[in-house]
Amino acid sequence: MTDASTNMRLKLPIVCFILQIILIILFGVLVQYDHEVDAKKWHSHNHSDYDNDFYYRYPSFQDVHVMIFVGFGFLMTFLQRYGFSSVGFNFLIAAFALQWATLMQGFFHGMHGGKIHIGVESMINADFCTGSVLISFGAVLGKTSPIQLLVMALFEVTLFAVNEFILLSVLGAKDAGGSMTIHTFGAYFGLIVARVLYRPNLNKSKHRNSSVYHSDLFAMIGTIFLWMFWPSFNSAITAHGDDQHRTALNTYYSLAACTLSTYGMSALTAHDGKLDMVHIQNAALAGGVAAGTAGEMMLTPFGSMIVGFLAGIISVLGFKFLSPILEEKLKIQDTCGVHNLHGMPGILGAIVGAVTAAVASTDTYGDGMADVFPDVATGDVEASFQGIRQAISLAVTLGMALLGGLIVGFIMKLPVFGAPPDALCFEDSIYWEVSGNKLLFFDDWLNYSGKKTTKIIKYFINDSKSPIKLVVY
Amino acid sequence: MTDASTNMRLKLPIVCFILQIILIILFGVLVQYDHEVDAKKWHSHNHSDYDNDFYYRYPSFQDVHVMIFVGFGFLMTFLQRYGFSSVGFNFLIAAFALQWATLMQGFFHGMHGGKIHIGVESMINADFCTGSVLISFGAVLGKTSPIQLLVMALFEVTLFAVNEFILLSVLGAKDAGGSMTIHTFGAYFGLIVARVLYRPNLNKSKHRNSSVYHSDLFAMIGTIFLWMFWPSFNSAITAHGDDQHRTALNTYYSLAACTLSTYGMSALTAHDGKLDMVHIQNAALAGGVAAGTAGEMMLTPFGSMIVGFLAGIISVLGFKFLSPILEEKLKIQDTCGVHNLHGMPGILGAIVGAVTAAVASTDTYGDGMADVFPDVATGDVEASFQGIRQAISLAVTLGMALLGGLIVGFIMKLPVFGAPPDALCFEDSIYWEVSGNKLLFFDDWLNYSGKKTTKIIKYFINDSKSPIKLVVY
Amino acid sequence: MTDASTNMRLKLPIVCFILQIILIILFGVLVQYDHEVDAKKWHSHNHSDYDNDFYYRYPSFQDVHVMIFVGFGFLMTFLQRYGFSSVGFNFLIAAFALQWATLMQGFFHGMHGGKIHIGVESMINADFCTGSVLISFGAVLGKTSPIQLLVMALFEVTLFAVNEFILLSVLGAKDAGGSMTIHTFGAYFGLIVARVLYRPNLNKSKHRNSSVYHSDLFAMIGTIFLWMFWPSFNSAITAHGDDQHRTALNTYYSLAACTLSTYGMSALTAHDGKLDMVHIQNAALAGGVAAGTAGEMMLTPFGSMIVGFLAGIISVLGFKFLSPILEEKLKIQDTCGVHNLHGMPGILGAIVGAVTAAVASTDTYGDGMADVFPDVATGDVEASFQGIRQAISLAVTLGMALLGGLIVGFIMKLPVFGAPPDALCFEDSIYWEVSGNKLLFFDDWLNYSGKKTTKIIKYFINDSKSPIKLVVY
Repeated sequence: MTDASTNMRLKLPIVCFILQIILIILFGVLVQYDHEVDAKKWHSHNHSDYDNDFYYRYPSFQDVHVMIFVGFGFLMTFLQRYGFSSVGFNFLIAAFALQWATLMQGFFHGMHGGKIHIGVESMINADFCTGSVLISFGAVLGKTSPIQLLVMALFEVTLFAVNEFILLSVLGAKDAGGSMTIHTFGAYFGLIVARVLYRPNLNKSKHRNSSVYHSDLFAMIGTIFLWMFWPSFNSAITAHGDDQHRTALNTYYSLAACTLSTYGMSALTAHDGKLDMVHIQNAALAGGVAAGTAGEMMLTPFGSMIVGFLAGIISVLGFKFLSPILEEKLKIQDTCGVHNLHGMPGILGAIVGAVTAAVASTDTYGDGMADVFPDVATGDVEASFQGIRQAISLAVTLGMALLGGLIVGFIMKLPVFGAPPDALCFEDSIYWEVSGNKLLFFDDWLNYSGKKTTKIIKYFINDSKSPIKLVVY
Repeated sequence: MTDASTNMRLKLPIVCFILQIILIILFGVLVQYDHEVDAKKWHSHNHSDYDNDFYYRYPSFQDVHVMIFVGFGFLMTFLQRYGFSSVGFNFLIAAFALQWATLMQGFFHGMHGGKIHIGVESMINADFCTGSVLISFGAVLGKTSPIQLLVMALFEVTLFAVNEFILLSVLGAKDAGGSMTIHTFGAYFGLIVARVLYRPNLNKSKHRNSSVYHSDLFAMIGTIFLWMFWPSFNSAITAHGDDQHRTALNTYYSLAACTLSTYGMSALTAHDGKLDMVHIQNAALAGGVAAGTAGEMMLTPFGSMIVGFLAGIISVLGFKFLSPILEEKLKIQDTCGVHNLHGMPGILGAIVGAVTAAVASTDTYGDGMADVFPDVATGDVEASFQGIRQAISLAVTLGMALLGGLIVGFIMKLPVFGAPPDALCFEDSIYWEVSGNKLLFFDDWLNYSGKKTTKIIKYFINDSKSPIKLVVY
Repeated sequence: MTDASTNMRLKLPIVCFILQIILIILFGVLVQYDHEVDAKKWHSHNHSDYDNDFYYRYPSFQDVHVMIFVGFGFLMTFLQRYGFSSVGFNFLIAAFALQWATLMQGFFHGMHGGKIHIGVESMINADFCTGSVLISFGAVLGKTSPIQLLVMALFEVTLFAVNEFILLSVLGAKDAGGSMTIHTFGAYFGLIVARVLYRPNLNKSKHRNSSVYHSDLFAMIGTIFLWMFWPSFNSAITAHGDDQHRTALNTYYSLAACTLSTYGMSALTAHDGKLDMVHIQNAALAGGVAAGTAGEMMLTPFGSMIVGFLAGIISVLGFKFLSPILEEKLKIQDTCGVHNLHGMPGILGAIVGAVTAAVASTDTYGDGMADVFPDVATGDVEASFQGIRQAISLAVTLGMALLGGLIVGFIMKLPVFGAPPDALCFEDSIYWEVSGNKLLFFDDWLNYSGKKTTKIIKYFINDSKSPIKLVVY
């Protein structure tokens, strides 16, 4: 079932070992504990233990961590025969990406005397960057080899760090929850990669590009964990105190409102007035994406709920009407519909952030302005200009994502990376040892009935294309 | 498969949009950030960031959040064909209820100058109130439409807030973990609703009102998350310091003891000395319910373990002997056995709380009395009278639940809400797009064998009542 | 299907009730709240609420709690027909072990004036000790009755507490994440028990000692939760401030590096260059085990990644080459391969800890030395000697585990405990009520077709050994 090109026997070990050894060397040369992690530095100052940033951010970090590994991983298990790859490749590329992101992000905004200083905040940022790669993964899910995904992660993390640096450090934009840096970037990057990797004959695997009952339930594990912990995601790196508190609260209400509009739109648009699991699994999360930029601002619960409400509507409409157009007209085969969950809601979030920033006033923020919009607080810029910065940041992000995705897509297209053939997309067994699970019922039978059946079933497992013989005593 | 009355094409969107738009308007008019969430107010005072209540309660909030969405949601996936609805409707009504609860609870005890002030504590309280609705959901699981559930949530949240106000503010009772306000109220409210919605011909769906292997494993995800995080649930809104610490610890030991008595009772009562998943999934949690009132008191680990031990025994006996009687004699079809998990253990918890309060003394509590029993600390009331308050609170809760459930049950009975017919209860496909997953094996076959088979299988899928033809080459 | 000896009708209730009642009595006599949990004691001192250890450790405790109940529980659901027992027995023995561990550990290092003082730290330690028992459970998974497991837990917890006391209190070793006390001890204890319980005819159940598609996905839930929360596990009881921060960070990078080497080695060694779920589910976690001792030390991210990288390689090689030898030559049937996940990586972690301790210097640790190596800080011992202490601790742990496992294995072998026969190992239905789930497809059919089929299927369910008749209309 596996031909030479897709055989990972040598390719995957070589790539994994080389990447990991390079990472280890670079960490050895460049990375140090920051002053809150280092035994000597921490104790050389006089402070209480609870001043350590660990206690402000570690619980949020763990929630983010769950979103990255359980949330994204299981959300993609909806495919009937791609569960191992969904969770397993998510696991692999995330484990690589978070290490590489530590270096790339550290290089751009963590250098102190030639060394990258790391702690809980850099861990959160590394997970954030990883999330962006996993969003792109969703667009190409089922059509790529693990090596292609590692290559994508290698380049995407780098470009993510550059884009993040431009937005936050050069342009002075705010994007705590990453509507732009994470969601918009990850989605459009992945969509362009999917365009470059377009497969005209993907319908050969069409019968596998769908869910079954249990796979949809596994996917709901991912959905619910993403939904629950999104308030922690958006608030994880905001300023201490009211900022983290406010961001979590805004996201909480945005998601709740989004869920109701998603259910309403799903019943309205889906066949025969029935709810569509694809909408529930994805669109209900759009409220978190759309609150990613403005969540830390004085958006008010009222504003948050309007944002979430709109995000859910846009997302379901995208799944229903836009995705087919993307595939037919633009030749973008977006497996998980990341354009509907991360793309459009990310843009919405960016716009909401720009508008909310533009109307910020000392009346509303008081001395808290310094945390949310430091440049406005110092008087360096007007709030309206901060809004413009945010808008420019969205444009830059889209440009970086489209251009980056184009280049990286062509790199990923190189035949050496062992992409699956059209007829074996969305299929675990090409990269994974898969027991004869699809024959569970037969398998049971096998244990109770005679040799003859056994023989035939083995035969069926080994050569599934041949007609089935059913032995009836 | 769907007739006009159960078709949600228009009904569900209309209900979701109207409810959400009303919520948004009311939030716009009535709701404000509290002083720990608002940028201006927080910075107008001089305090350290770690004084912000966010750091005391947010980790507990997230644990409670997981219980509400993963815990309750997956606990109910034990039904073989109702997994989408269990997780999905749980998700929908919880997302609505937490918004509505913010308003109702705020109206009764969060008003400041005509505005409802919200923060992490109000988020926890909103999730608590939502939990009560989800308990009632368990009693009517499989026999109601999503619209009926939203209607139930609308009214139940309102009555919950009234009852909570009477107990905590008027009667001065203590009920941090909600043995009374959440569990007893939710359970008896739901049971009466189930009584009003009694279906004499429910046996038409009998073959679906049971579990299969994988659905029981999904349910265990819910059970285990509820069990693990229950200490956070009971301690989430207790006073800072020793109170949160003590409540979590008491609940931890109560649950551990409950688990052993549950396993013992299950083997003792179940068929052929085998363990029954229904008992493990539910009764093992009774120890958390029963520690909901006294958990914050000086119950001691010893007392907590006795409470948990008894709760497990009562709960298993309820499943074994009481549930059949409820169904046959009282015509209460309690799908999830909420009477055994939340009803009786809730009453036990209320009684334990009353007794523990009655024997409270300054010898035991010292200056900590002010946190647990403020009125006793100030000398306004005797500890014994505090015990009486607790007992009266249980009676009030039962009265509110029974009367409320009766009225709301009849409202839910209105034919317009699209309840499923008796023959299609416990069936996802009436409200959800369900792929032909039950034919997974066939489906696979289909991909490998000839046209003829294909045709027959389609036929089988489209009209499952017709006899099956099996093509053997 | 159940004969007298394996029937739990009376045995299990008796054991559960006796154990729990003894626990309750001992808690009543011996256990008290510590000064941070007790209302009077806490308020008798003048301190801020955030000084309460609850806020430093409770989030970590909950992460550890998830690892114990969801992590270990679901990791073992990979067996196709043992999911109920994997999660269910894990649940039962953990609930017992954490209570018993509170007493045993308290007896050795928690006594104050004849009383055992408990709080969040003792809860974490109790969960740690429980983890050790669950590791041993992995070695005998599928071949033991719940009573045998409770007996094992009873003795293993006791020996764990003795060993822990010798290491930490007598020898003055450091082992915050338990590479020695938890992983090495639990693994070798379990392996020796497995040796004593060796079954020459286990191949009678061979067809059940494997996974199916969905069971592997359930197992991944366990794997991912263990992987994500391991940083909390290793840092849960380290000193406040930089120590917790550093331990979490070291573990985070160790696990990431381990994941890449695991994927590489799996593709290199597995059949046909395909990834093996067994490796991914287990070996990817070895990085957490190996960072259990040195994680709190100034290991540096560089060092942590090397440790994790090696742990992954060792673990996969163990599964591939060592496990078959253990079974054939040493007659150790290690169901979950705990030797590869906990045994060898635990020893690696102990050695890394000894070396890292031996090279500790004030240059590196500054005043932080007092937290990590108090005796070195006071000058009582040289760092090099601390390294020797660590090495001796490993030897002691191995000795205690091997000797203890030998004795306890023979106790567990007593016929009265109701072990399953060789032909019914790895089978839930011997101890659990199991619905006819293996016949899901038939079951559905049953609902649509005639009486005749029904009869035959019932017959099939009741006596699965008889040949199957398939009715074709």
